[in-house]
Amino acid sequence: MTAVRIPRLVVIGAGLIGGSFALALKRAGVVGEVVGISRRPETLEQAKQLGVIDRIGAYDAESFAGADLVLVATPVGQMGKVFAAIAPFLPREAVVTDGGSTKQDVIAVAREHLAGTLDRFVPAHPISGTEKSGPGAAFPELYVDRRVVLTPMAETSARAQALVRAAWEACGARVSELPADEHDAMLAAVSHLPHLLAFALVDEFAARPNGERIFSFSGGGFRDFTRIASSSPEMWRDIFLSNREAVSVELKHYRDKLEEVQKLLDAGDGAALENLFERSRSARGRWL
Amino acid sequence: MTAVRIPRLVVIGAGLIGGSFALALKRAGVVGEVVGISRRPETLEQAKQLGVIDRIGAYDAESFAGADLVLVATPVGQMGKVFAAIAPFLPREAVVTDGGSTKQDVIAVAREHLAGTLDRFVPAHPISGTEKSGPGAAFPELYVDRRVVLTPMAETSARAQALVRAAWEACGARVSELPADEHDAMLAAVSHLPHLLAFALVDEFAARPNGERIFSFSGGGFRDFTRIASSSPEMWRDIFLSNREAVSVELKHYRDKLEEVQKLLDAGDGAALENLFERSRSARGRWL
Repeated sequence: MTAVRIPRLVVIGAGLIGGSFALALKRAGVVGEVVGISRRPETLEQAKQLGVIDRIGAYDAESFAGADLVLVATPVGQMGKVFAAIAPFLPREAVVTDGGSTKQDVIAVAREHLAGTLDRFVPAHPISGTEKSGPGAAFPELYVDRRVVLTPMAETSARAQALVRAAWEACGARVSELPADEHDAMLAAVSHLPHLLAFALVDEFAARPNGERIFSFSGGGFRDFTRIASSSPEMWRDIFLSNREAVSVELKHYRDKLEEVQKLLDAGDGAALENLFERSRSARGRWL
Repeated sequence: MTAVRIPRLVVIGAGLIGGSFALALKRAGVVGEVVGISRRPETLEQAKQLGVIDRIGAYDAESFAGADLVLVATPVGQMGKVFAAIAPFLPREAVVTDGGSTKQDVIAVAREHLAGTLDRFVPAHPISGTEKSGPGAAFPELYVDRRVVLTPMAETSARAQALVRAAWEACGARVSELPADEHDAMLAAVSHLPHLLAFALVDEFAARPNGERIFSFSGGGFRDFTRIASSSPEMWRDIFLSNREAVSVELKHYRDKLEEVQKLLDAGDGAALENLFERSRSARGRWL
């Protein structure tokens, strides 16, 4: 692990992801001042009161003066606007990274709005959200033993990448690298699709006249299965728009799978169902 | 809450459900001796070593002598055989109940094999499993604040029903009543369908050449979403065969829902997706 020291950090979007990054670096004692920027003044006030950030900033020269690292942790649909807003104020040495759940689209808007500083841009994705959001949900241990994926561009410098890696390692994360397209395809399967399935299931029941009653008979299985359906609607709208094609492919595969399962069910094929359940349980056991 | 006293309890299937029932009643101090019966001798040995049961029983007069309450907590596909096996040995006053996740089929096999003692049979379903199974998974707090649904038959006596209700209340559960067909329809939606979806999703990925790699990029969302895919394959095969028609209807509804969602996704309709996510998050918030 590289020893890292970040005298000044700017966090844009001081919610669960950005706030927890700031708190984790503070706990590790590797960060000096944390400047926070957000669309919502009340988010910044709350983040300051909670000690997540030290100073409320804005898109101006003063807020970015002396910044060593800038983390953009907004919904991915905001990132183009944010990159455009920060570009004029970035000091020569400042490294920029992001916390977005999709990477190809973030890279595309970075190419557009951070054209002069791509050597100092490190696209990254901490795989460690919860269904909660906002600075009140942030906590310093969020990233301990969690995976953070860097998807560096051809232009990304070794120095910038080393700084971002070291910062995440200081948060306790396990850092790996992946091409952006592979990242997006993988996450479409293992994260984006399950979110879509959970949102759809809850909405299916909620739309029924007896929806409340159905919920009242649910147990721990349903609660855990649908936990991710309490996630931020805006954040997830952006993710699905950003990674639309890969998610569409996964959803189609899954719908084909459910068609097969329906056939087994309607045929009363207990042996085939039990085999499927057994394969699934074994695979999950190996994975855990 | 009725004061309850069960000098002798027989538990058939001393796993998670039956074992936790025994442990909870012991903790409440309302049970005398617990006799355990199981297909598997090693299950009984383990249950006895763990103090889940006091005595290893069998399908014979001695094991059922003086039994006040008999809980059948096997997979539902076993229950016909179990009812047939216990019928010759049931004392005149013994009340029989079960812990099956489906109720119409259990009632049907009870009508067949417990014909002489239906007044003392109380069909019941504790909505409180975990993905674990076996006596080692049992613990006395499993039922605290959990819902137990009784689906009494026309023949069920008030005395038998009161005893079973009081026993579950002594375990800390909230007991309610429902017609068996309504129970099965409700549980098909809120429990059986999610299990099928989780099993199908894990198997979909496990079947791919890069399945292990996909799993390795999953986070807490996927882990919770698929927790129920680690459930007992035999138990769930039986549930799906037992409640096949109701689950088939729910699966069809859900597949129709996913078809709609795919259209929104492929059209890039961010506003409609965000609305769906917002409705889903609100409904889940109200329900919690």
